[in-house]
Amino acid sequence: MKLRYHTYDLKLRHTFTIARESSDVSTVVFVELEHDGITGYGEASPSNRYGETTDTVIEFIKKVEGDKISNPFLIERNVRYLESLSQKDYSARTAVDMAMHDWVGKALGVPLYRMWGLHPDDAPLTTFTIGIDSTEKIKKKVREAEQYPLLKIKLGGDNDEEILNAVRSETDKVLCVDANEGWSVREIALEKILWLAKNGVEFVEQPMPADQLLDTAWLLERASLPVIADENVVTLYDVPKVRGAFDGINIKLMKCGGLNAALKMIYTAKSMQMKVMMGCMVESSVAISAAAQLSPLLDYADLDGNLLITNDPFEGVTVEDGRLILPDKPGIGVTKKGGT
Amino acid sequence: MKLRYHTYDLKLRHTFTIARESSDVSTVVFVELEHDGITGYGEASPSNRYGETTDTVIEFIKKVEGDKISNPFLIERNVRYLESLSQKDYSARTAVDMAMHDWVGKALGVPLYRMWGLHPDDAPLTTFTIGIDSTEKIKKKVREAEQYPLLKIKLGGDNDEEILNAVRSETDKVLCVDANEGWSVREIALEKILWLAKNGVEFVEQPMPADQLLDTAWLLERASLPVIADENVVTLYDVPKVRGAFDGINIKLMKCGGLNAALKMIYTAKSMQMKVMMGCMVESSVAISAAAQLSPLLDYADLDGNLLITNDPFEGVTVEDGRLILPDKPGIGVTKKGGT
Repeated sequence: MKLRYHTYDLKLRHTFTIARESSDVSTVVFVELEHDGITGYGEASPSNRYGETTDTVIEFIKKVEGDKISNPFLIERNVRYLESLSQKDYSARTAVDMAMHDWVGKALGVPLYRMWGLHPDDAPLTTFTIGIDSTEKIKKKVREAEQYPLLKIKLGGDNDEEILNAVRSETDKVLCVDANEGWSVREIALEKILWLAKNGVEFVEQPMPADQLLDTAWLLERASLPVIADENVVTLYDVPKVRGAFDGINIKLMKCGGLNAALKMIYTAKSMQMKVMMGCMVESSVAISAAAQLSPLLDYADLDGNLLITNDPFEGVTVEDGRLILPDKPGIGVTKKGGT
Repeated sequence: MKLRYHTYDLKLRHTFTIARESSDVSTVVFVELEHDGITGYGEASPSNRYGETTDTVIEFIKKVEGDKISNPFLIERNVRYLESLSQKDYSARTAVDMAMHDWVGKALGVPLYRMWGLHPDDAPLTTFTIGIDSTEKIKKKVREAEQYPLLKIKLGGDNDEEILNAVRSETDKVLCVDANEGWSVREIALEKILWLAKNGVEFVEQPMPADQLLDTAWLLERASLPVIADENVVTLYDVPKVRGAFDGINIKLMKCGGLNAALKMIYTAKSMQMKVMMGCMVESSVAISAAAQLSPLLDYADLDGNLLITNDPFEGVTVEDGRLILPDKPGIGVTKKGGT
């Protein structure tokens, strides 16, 4: 079993701003797991919120001993081994988990969605994200996003009203809102939600800081829109903890440790009759296509990371009229552009 | 897609008694799903606790329209279709779900444990059940169970002490106890558990009636042994409800609706850091081998249904020194005796 890796700069179509930061380039680490003549692909998009950089990803991957995960079929044991190396290093573990899953799908000759018993037509619409920006640039982004029927806007800064008005001056599409923990006073969060409900918003993600779980439970009782957990849910064990504070969870592969963990989180949330969405970071078609394999199980998808970049070295899942189209290819379903 | 079925009388080695009933023969319904030249096997062992008989199973199977589950790979859609026909009829739905899974494993050419990323060596010991009986017969059964290192005894009647003493007069093996809802006064249930803890018992299953969940939570705080839910957990949606009242859950394929539901229940229980066991009814090697495919994920297994019968028409999982040995065969891993 050979594990290779290299960094790659994903170039952003627009400078990307959320409540915490902004950037033009996002560097990821690609992983290739080669075994028995089959190569599985994975990708890590490290998050500095969790103390990760491309350096920490590479450091983690160097620690992985090939003979400990020499049979990629043994996902459950292999994932436990990766966890034993580090409870953190989420995106690095995700990259290896993803490469194992891609390998398994290719070894069995089926897309992962098929292995999981899913029908690709059950994939939901994906939202397309309009990052925080000047009013003029937001309007331009909204116009450019014409082909996407569902937009996600990032609020939680000082000018929520200005942003929403800019978007609404261009479109009456259904919107989803990600507040990225931006509203720390529960009464204000409630006002915002009541206001958004009147403005064609479908749900609100992470209205309050993750350490204000009780305030979020207070908010949930009063909110007129579904409230979805993002920063409050990192791993599988967080899912039962947010019951009663959120209507649903947003799973991100780069936070949860991989496809194995994501599948378990989806099943767990559904057992609690919570909604499930999957989100992403800025990622290439590798990680987006991997997440999309699970999308037939989702209520909402926010898998647009590859639509935000200009130099994707892979092709896989595509979007038609906002709908995720899963390729009929084995594993995570990606091929290198101009090759395999 | 063709769905065939026939009833079959499983002959019991010993008259089988639990707190509620006793019997010498147990009739099951075998199902065969044939599609694209591959046949998947399933089995329903109907439980009268849930109003099921072989007649209700057959009635359900007759309702299944072949074109609604014409692609066995689409497990998630197919399971939803079966649920749409009946929220009850657990064992009938399980039989069809099992046949679909067997078909998928055969179509992919791998055992189900492999498709689920598991290593067969991670399968735990299985308990061997000593049914309620006269003191002399219990002693005889314990002697006959010499090759099984872990015994499960059924208590919850009027003579718990007599039964335990009879078992202990023959062996000092570790025991598991299933009270089958037999102790309805919580103080008495607590006394029983403290007494069992001193007598080499590893865990107690369903000490109190299922409708006494708060009493069971009271008991859990005071119990010196793990308390496992059986009658309190039927389907996936019951798993989150028993958190705080039990340390773990016992999943039975014949109650939960099939392998798809069982996998989801296991993942959900683990997200709550609860223990997971799988139990069974009197079943042939078809249903036992199907359950055994999930056993590498379990803390405890009680998969002895096929060891209690004398005319098993199939062979699949075997038990060596109490350990479940999963066959290296595709799907659920069974073959018809004297054929395929």
